Amino acid sequence: MISQERIKEILESYGGEITIGTIASHSALQILHGARQEGFDTLLITTKDREKLYRNFNVANFTLFVENFKDILSSEVQDELIERNCVLIPHGSFVEYIGPKNILDKLEVPCFGNRLVLEWESDRRKEREWLTSSGLKMPREVKPDEIDGPVIVKFFGAKGGRDFFLASSEEEYWDKIRGREKEPHVIQEYVVGTRFYLHYFYSPLNDEIEFTGSDIRYESNVDGLTRIPDWEKYFSPTYVVTGNIPVILRESLLPEVFEMGERVVKKSKELFYPGMIGPFCLETVCTDGLEFYVFEISARIVAGTSLYVWGSPYTWVKYNEPMSTGRRIALEIKRGLETNRESELIW
Amino acid sequence: MISQERIKEILESYGGEITIGTIASHSALQILHGARQEGFDTLLITTKDREKLYRNFNVANFTLFVENFKDILSSEVQDELIERNCVLIPHGSFVEYIGPKNILDKLEVPCFGNRLVLEWESDRRKEREWLTSSGLKMPREVKPDEIDGPVIVKFFGAKGGRDFFLASSEEEYWDKIRGREKEPHVIQEYVVGTRFYLHYFYSPLNDEIEFTGSDIRYESNVDGLTRIPDWEKYFSPTYVVTGNIPVILRESLLPEVFEMGERVVKKSKELFYPGMIGPFCLETVCTDGLEFYVFEISARIVAGTSLYVWGSPYTWVKYNEPMSTGRRIALEIKRGLETNRESELIW
Amino acid sequence: MISQERIKEILESYGGEITIGTIASHSALQILHGARQEGFDTLLITTKDREKLYRNFNVANFTLFVENFKDILSSEVQDELIERNCVLIPHGSFVEYIGPKNILDKLEVPCFGNRLVLEWESDRRKEREWLTSSGLKMPREVKPDEIDGPVIVKFFGAKGGRDFFLASSEEEYWDKIRGREKEPHVIQEYVVGTRFYLHYFYSPLNDEIEFTGSDIRYESNVDGLTRIPDWEKYFSPTYVVTGNIPVILRESLLPEVFEMGERVVKKSKELFYPGMIGPFCLETVCTDGLEFYVFEISARIVAGTSLYVWGSPYTWVKYNEPMSTGRRIALEIKRGLETNRESELIW
Repeated sequence: MISQERIKEILESYGGEITIGTIASHSALQILHGARQEGFDTLLITTKDREKLYRNFNVANFTLFVENFKDILSSEVQDELIERNCVLIPHGSFVEYIGPKNILDKLEVPCFGNRLVLEWESDRRKEREWLTSSGLKMPREVKPDEIDGPVIVKFFGAKGGRDFFLASSEEEYWDKIRGREKEPHVIQEYVVGTRFYLHYFYSPLNDEIEFTGSDIRYESNVDGLTRIPDWEKYFSPTYVVTGNIPVILRESLLPEVFEMGERVVKKSKELFYPGMIGPFCLETVCTDGLEFYVFEISARIVAGTSLYVWGSPYTWVKYNEPMSTGRRIALEIKRGLETNRESELIW
Repeated sequence: MISQERIKEILESYGGEITIGTIASHSALQILHGARQEGFDTLLITTKDREKLYRNFNVANFTLFVENFKDILSSEVQDELIERNCVLIPHGSFVEYIGPKNILDKLEVPCFGNRLVLEWESDRRKEREWLTSSGLKMPREVKPDEIDGPVIVKFFGAKGGRDFFLASSEEEYWDKIRGREKEPHVIQEYVVGTRFYLHYFYSPLNDEIEFTGSDIRYESNVDGLTRIPDWEKYFSPTYVVTGNIPVILRESLLPEVFEMGERVVKKSKELFYPGMIGPFCLETVCTDGLEFYVFEISARIVAGTSLYVWGSPYTWVKYNEPMSTGRRIALEIKRGLETNRESELIW
Repeated sequence: MISQERIKEILESYGGEITIGTIASHSALQILHGARQEGFDTLLITTKDREKLYRNFNVANFTLFVENFKDILSSEVQDELIERNCVLIPHGSFVEYIGPKNILDKLEVPCFGNRLVLEWESDRRKEREWLTSSGLKMPREVKPDEIDGPVIVKFFGAKGGRDFFLASSEEEYWDKIRGREKEPHVIQEYVVGTRFYLHYFYSPLNDEIEFTGSDIRYESNVDGLTRIPDWEKYFSPTYVVTGNIPVILRESLLPEVFEMGERVVKKSKELFYPGMIGPFCLETVCTDGLEFYVFEISARIVAGTSLYVWGSPYTWVKYNEPMSTGRRIALEIKRGLETNRESELIW
């Protein structure tokens, strides 16, 4: 693992002059646009085929071409990024393309946030430990003889969320699993309700949680299927994210929403010092009893925040000026620089 | 009932200096934020557990703590509110927590709008009379032998909208109701189509209806169910509001939408002088024949307007500046004060 | 067909002073509001019953009343429009009410864009030729013995999209079509996925495609049906557009989205000189393999853009100021006027 000393050393070498960079995907438009709003120069790391899009939107001061995104790990690219005083903003695709282990072991370029979160987020058991020990509710995992209501049975493996079935009794479970009993799978209480992807920002500089918005993922093919009569006869549902739809929450749910965010951050400080920094997202379902169940945490900017390039209903109340998550990140870095605390944001 | 004289007397005692207040729920963020935009001081009435949320958003100049929201009726709290020249903005939770009868009989603090609307809105028969006599279409209520298409049969009682069944013939009705014939219920034509919660604002100062936006309620568990194959086998739908999704209307529907709002306001002036004031919402379904059926009216700010803290597509056309419903209320009060007509807004 | 010479002559007679006009429907609020933002005088052509709506929103400098919208073809109305230096902005209802052939043959008033697109868009075969020769994927049309998965069988005729059935094998096809084999119909591969109505703007002045946003159509009765248990037993789905819901796309899909827009424009220049101008929309479905299938093209402003009167997430990144499609059209005309190139925008 790259040492903290090395990263802080590089950051120090920037002498307070920072260029904000990211790779050309996920929420890069918003990240670079937000950085510009706060007065930063911006750098885009891109493959040839994607460059045109970002040029059209004119969000990058510098463009660095790579054959594929993993090349960011090469010493040439890292040297150039460091040369340009680059702080990288990691996003979901950033982690997916480069790999959490590679980021921890090979990426010296300073990244906004705490790298250690990658260890807790990318391991499903550690993630469950973090969330449940924060007091958040997650769907129960049960044994066949504990089935006392609808459950979802998920097979592990490469089918991208397609390999599962529903059951509502032990009998139905044994009936449907016949012949595959030995395959690794999990039986989970099926929690139904409205999906909310809750966007947060934690500022270590002022030790405050902000709730910045929420979205609903728009998934293919399932969100097209339901309009077809008797679709179950013709199609199987799949859950590939293709976009995001804006949504607000019933205001009386917000105290609980804040509480969940605070607990997760508080616990993160115990689990991986100095804990989580910046934007994160809780993927939840809200039951008809108005209880939130959390399925996952994304410990960085999520794509749904790009709905709010010009601010969400929540950020408008708080800021009275356009404040995207991309801009909020840049603002935090700017405040860090202004108070010589930028090293508290980058681990 | 508190007399008009008493209320106007208190309002007069404010001497044109008004603090805008509401209780910590529903659309309080938007109401207080909007009041601030128009230059008012703001007051939040809150329980201990909710205060943190509103402090995080920094929307209140004064915070008044209560054990529970009904304490607002105590003379101590009322005295303090009056002392602070408070005009309360009622919202859905405000009415629910305090109770329409308590507001009419015990709340002396001036409230924006016409209290008398509470009598027409909280009684389902009077509400139906108001809406149908305004020329709005509502779903027909039918007798068993009049069933000539899909109907919904709703049992009255405490199950929160869960106790109903569908039928499409008299035979199916008798078949499904067997054993419960004596329980109070209503058979209603089942009107299907797209749901639109239509937001209006009526200004008595300039005698004008504004159409300010619309939303779709995001309800648990039903809005999560439909993505599950054969969900009917595993779950029963429930319809608990958890959030709101933005939507605009086909522009050619807007003349009808305006007309509906105008009719409801016109009729309200006949039914309860001086009629409805400020924001209201018609809860509608638009059929595939492009006809609107109204299910309910909310005679005050609805939660869906909080989607538009920074303005809706409609308010942007009209105002060219951010205009939430919360701000629009404050603007109306400000205009009232500027023209010494504030007493026309508070009954 | 009205000659290009005649149209350019009229445009020239305006002497660089233009009033932007349209008819009272579809996206007229946005068009006139946007024109005002760019400093143009605006003109509304309206029937008596619709005028009130537009007056309420105060978007028109001049109002021209007609008995019905086809009267726009009369020489009196055309003379008045020309007298007032009017450039018309065509929208979907504009074309529907007046008729593509009438526009081509009888409307001398200059219209923003290239009229010739009407010939390619209103003829389903030519439209398919345009889109497929641009390299866009459309759902395959198949013969009964080619059915190898879910297909939709659509009967042609006046039932407004209600007359269709699904099948997943040749056998099921023959079974369901029995007795109607002779009626004209098409068998189409059923492509399922998430619907995206993709909004573009092509500027001939700077030869650039802009991606300005996307929406999901909110259709009655289908979007109300799916919440009803076993709805197929009680109702048949219909697909009448009643509104629009905002949506953004997964950012990694945007390069493909741009590419599709560019190809369509490039091909249009070959097919009907000088090709497409201004706003257009591709109506797509995105599969769970992240492939776009195009169902239709709208070669002008679409109603879904009215979600973004104050800008979309995409236009905010690009412009950093409110930029609706209506305003973007006006901006293009203004830039045309400033560079004496306005005649390149009007054919």
